Amino acid sequence: MARGGCKSVFLSVFDYKTEKYVIANNKKVGVLFRLFQLGVLVYIIGWVFLIKKGYQEREESIQSSVISKLKGINLINTTQNISRVWGPEDYVIPPQGEGVFFIVTNFIETPNQRLGYCAESTKVVDALCEDDGDCIEEAAVRASHGIMSGRCLNSTGTCEIYGWCPVEANHKSMDATLMGAVNFTVYIKNFIRFPHFNFSKSNVLDTKNETYLKSCFYDKIANPYCPIFRLGDIVAWSGNDFNRMAVKGGSIAIMIEWNCDLDKDICNPEYSFTRLDHSVNSITTGYNFRYAHYYNDEAGQTYRTLYKVCGIRFDIIVNGEAGKFNIIPTVVNIGSGLAVMGAGVFICDLVLLYMMKKSTLYRERKFESVMQYDSPKWNHTNKKNLAREVVLEMN
Amino acid sequence: MARGGCKSVFLSVFDYKTEKYVIANNKKVGVLFRLFQLGVLVYIIGWVFLIKKGYQEREESIQSSVISKLKGINLINTTQNISRVWGPEDYVIPPQGEGVFFIVTNFIETPNQRLGYCAESTKVVDALCEDDGDCIEEAAVRASHGIMSGRCLNSTGTCEIYGWCPVEANHKSMDATLMGAVNFTVYIKNFIRFPHFNFSKSNVLDTKNETYLKSCFYDKIANPYCPIFRLGDIVAWSGNDFNRMAVKGGSIAIMIEWNCDLDKDICNPEYSFTRLDHSVNSITTGYNFRYAHYYNDEAGQTYRTLYKVCGIRFDIIVNGEAGKFNIIPTVVNIGSGLAVMGAGVFICDLVLLYMMKKSTLYRERKFESVMQYDSPKWNHTNKKNLAREVVLEMN
Amino acid sequence: MARGGCKSVFLSVFDYKTEKYVIANNKKVGVLFRLFQLGVLVYIIGWVFLIKKGYQEREESIQSSVISKLKGINLINTTQNISRVWGPEDYVIPPQGEGVFFIVTNFIETPNQRLGYCAESTKVVDALCEDDGDCIEEAAVRASHGIMSGRCLNSTGTCEIYGWCPVEANHKSMDATLMGAVNFTVYIKNFIRFPHFNFSKSNVLDTKNETYLKSCFYDKIANPYCPIFRLGDIVAWSGNDFNRMAVKGGSIAIMIEWNCDLDKDICNPEYSFTRLDHSVNSITTGYNFRYAHYYNDEAGQTYRTLYKVCGIRFDIIVNGEAGKFNIIPTVVNIGSGLAVMGAGVFICDLVLLYMMKKSTLYRERKFESVMQYDSPKWNHTNKKNLAREVVLEMN
Repeated sequence: MARGGCKSVFLSVFDYKTEKYVIANNKKVGVLFRLFQLGVLVYIIGWVFLIKKGYQEREESIQSSVISKLKGINLINTTQNISRVWGPEDYVIPPQGEGVFFIVTNFIETPNQRLGYCAESTKVVDALCEDDGDCIEEAAVRASHGIMSGRCLNSTGTCEIYGWCPVEANHKSMDATLMGAVNFTVYIKNFIRFPHFNFSKSNVLDTKNETYLKSCFYDKIANPYCPIFRLGDIVAWSGNDFNRMAVKGGSIAIMIEWNCDLDKDICNPEYSFTRLDHSVNSITTGYNFRYAHYYNDEAGQTYRTLYKVCGIRFDIIVNGEAGKFNIIPTVVNIGSGLAVMGAGVFICDLVLLYMMKKSTLYRERKFESVMQYDSPKWNHTNKKNLAREVVLEMN
Repeated sequence: MARGGCKSVFLSVFDYKTEKYVIANNKKVGVLFRLFQLGVLVYIIGWVFLIKKGYQEREESIQSSVISKLKGINLINTTQNISRVWGPEDYVIPPQGEGVFFIVTNFIETPNQRLGYCAESTKVVDALCEDDGDCIEEAAVRASHGIMSGRCLNSTGTCEIYGWCPVEANHKSMDATLMGAVNFTVYIKNFIRFPHFNFSKSNVLDTKNETYLKSCFYDKIANPYCPIFRLGDIVAWSGNDFNRMAVKGGSIAIMIEWNCDLDKDICNPEYSFTRLDHSVNSITTGYNFRYAHYYNDEAGQTYRTLYKVCGIRFDIIVNGEAGKFNIIPTVVNIGSGLAVMGAGVFICDLVLLYMMKKSTLYRERKFESVMQYDSPKWNHTNKKNLAREVVLEMN
Repeated sequence: MARGGCKSVFLSVFDYKTEKYVIANNKKVGVLFRLFQLGVLVYIIGWVFLIKKGYQEREESIQSSVISKLKGINLINTTQNISRVWGPEDYVIPPQGEGVFFIVTNFIETPNQRLGYCAESTKVVDALCEDDGDCIEEAAVRASHGIMSGRCLNSTGTCEIYGWCPVEANHKSMDATLMGAVNFTVYIKNFIRFPHFNFSKSNVLDTKNETYLKSCFYDKIANPYCPIFRLGDIVAWSGNDFNRMAVKGGSIAIMIEWNCDLDKDICNPEYSFTRLDHSVNSITTGYNFRYAHYYNDEAGQTYRTLYKVCGIRFDIIVNGEAGKFNIIPTVVNIGSGLAVMGAGVFICDLVLLYMMKKSTLYRERKFESVMQYDSPKWNHTNKKNLAREVVLEMN
């Protein structure tokens, strides 16, 4: 007995062992099982591999560098009624052309501000006063332009402040000053790299000749790979009206999506445009900030010109994903699919063993007891049958 | 025989085949197996699905756009004892309000610098000299302010240089000049988008009314979704003292984390604050840089005012993760779990077949040899038993 | 019968059930199967776990903050033959030291521009004219410097424009003016954080003492962790010649890769350098932009100095990946591997059952019919054999 035991252990290494199956002549469960298998196969091959490219390792961490360059000039009229020519050096902030750039489309200029005492703007609610008591000395109320002197000026009904005077004029110029900006062009260079796959590419295709780059304009259908955009188009594509947007300013995203299949060596940029600051409450819309140019007069006294610039800010947001064949995800998807198929067996067994008539019979044949003598099943059926057959044989 | 063979092949397509099991009346292994199964089930359902949301596809590549706007003014005293009012246009660099902005909290002003010859600062170690021999002409030593003329000035004990004179005063002003910055407020607009799920959101909740946005201040408990922050608070939350930090400057990260469950449609920002430049060696702490304002005098000669500004730089770092139900990870997790369950069978079999008394018996019934005539097992046990039974029957 | 059925169901919970195997004494298939198993094991343990660290959860979304600081001065000669000293405050744009910075290496200065009428540059092709008819009034042609007045100037053969006069001189200065930039140094501070693992680190190692940081220069072999770089080295490492690049400018990426194994607590930065704007067509190479300094004369009239600056833009691109042990990927990899192993059984079975002689025999023993009376196989073989044996026994 032990010998046989050892032997079987020994053999088991070289011999091929295969599960013993019981054939249940049961079409219902059989078809059910086949359907289940079919479903899993269709899912794995069709959905996971063909559609979702489950055989690829995907990388989402993209390295990106963006350079933008604007072109276009415009004639504007300053408050001193001097018609001035504005070029990129004036309306592009910051000038060096990064991934986020700002175009001045409208501005309020407050020239020749000097340090001194003057009345606070009536726009500053906390600075409205009836008598000096309302103006706390040395205080700086929210959004104020200076430090309160403590006096209340009846002329304007606001506190007197020490600061850069006169304070900024709060007239809303309803027509954007830099209307011409609609025709300005921006040339966007985007260089990307997928560190994993060590794959890098630029959105400026090398195949294009210089003249093409000098003359083309991006268009989703006609020129999908031309990196030069008209500002007017960008705003329009984002679903906004340039002229209306130019007044209060706003923020627009130029999204560049790289969807790369490195197996097929397909990797091209796709541009889309959305407005970022659009929302229900108007307080969050618009985009403006202030900066000042400082000058010294002959006496060496500093005076400045304050600019409150409204404009459109463009965020060039780059993201992408690259996929390349890799054995690990492939095995994971196949393996887990097969395992789920196994689950199908379990379910079908339940149906077979407990929901069919003749379930008992199936159970008896599927499950075989090791202890044959004290097993009722054995005596009950098998032995009898065998005996009967034998007797038949003998006669 | 062949006929039967073909038939079985043919049938096998329609019939349901189920593994034949041997029931080992062995409670020990049985319990062991059940426990293993239970463990795997708890792991899959409890850990993978309920806690880790294993049924979701996760996206970490987030598109983000940040706009920041500062408010607040402060009265400062320049070296020429002129009390000057500084507004955002002066202390925010760059002024346009990007994701990284810098607040001047302390600065050293060197007015009226003109090109010429003067003594190098004593701070520049390589420029200290005893005689002209120590000063190489035309050379520019590390961290120097100009080009050496080759002369050594006894007055200061440093080389003479050609550059903007006088050189920057190296007095450390120990009290931050722009103390009021502690009360400045910053309004942060953050727009995010998950390109995969094409889901976008802003940190400025639309439900809030304008007055709320005009008046609220962010607070982790009271106002977790108010996008307006007091600089003092930010620094405090990052575990630092504003006044001490304001002197040498520093760098603080405002981290916005979006943790979105798009199945439940939960997606809110969470703010946290850390200091970036804090480390053991003091050389890496602090943050400062220089810039100059250029002026022309009547004679058209250029002179400048040099500013060495120390301040706090705020990095708004956005990251996030979104999860949404997806069939593939679900199947992968279920499948692999089931497969591991299969491994349990293997282990339990080992225990049953080689670590139990009566192992031999189990082995005999589990493994059945195809070659029945030369199989010892078959003759040994089965045949005898059968015969015996038959005989019993017959009598 | 039903009793037995119930009983078996009842028992099945406590009893351990194990598949019944048929031992096929077939070395060929046995070896095939063992080889397959071996292959899968080697793949899982060797490739997935040891090499690909399949037991780790990987995070690619890295939070990064970069501070850069430049040092170095240079003597340059302006068009007015004034030798001027340029420091970081002049040649670094923007001055505050962000992740993207620009070094002026060459520039064209157009001083004392005033608003007025003058001839357009001959470089503007659309502004070349023979008579006034070629110059449309009020028009602004592509890349022009102003608004056309409508007159054609014979002197230059270009249209007259209203703008900042004189227009920019288009002389290409063939030797870079800021040659000394090759010796400038940049100190890069990079702070990173992996939000998932809440692990953060800086590229400035705390172990280094101050003097080291003051004196060291980065070198791939000698000083791989020194955060101070010579611009000349960076350009050289990117495979370019500084002097040639300095003339037209260019764009270089300083890539910092963090590859962290948080199990082993290994996490160090690795620097690499590539040129971004290099491509086939020269139009995309080079990097320049314009900015202006504005001045007011005694009369309060504004005049400006226009700078067209060429230079090298450095993009500090940070990316990284961290891995840490996690149970889920481990189980997924093991599980799917095991499942694939199961697929091996399927294949070997096919071989065994349909490609071997004696396949029929194997099939008969592997598949056992439930319906014994109407099953031909049963009567055919088993019964006969049994009967024969019994008879033999009895005699």
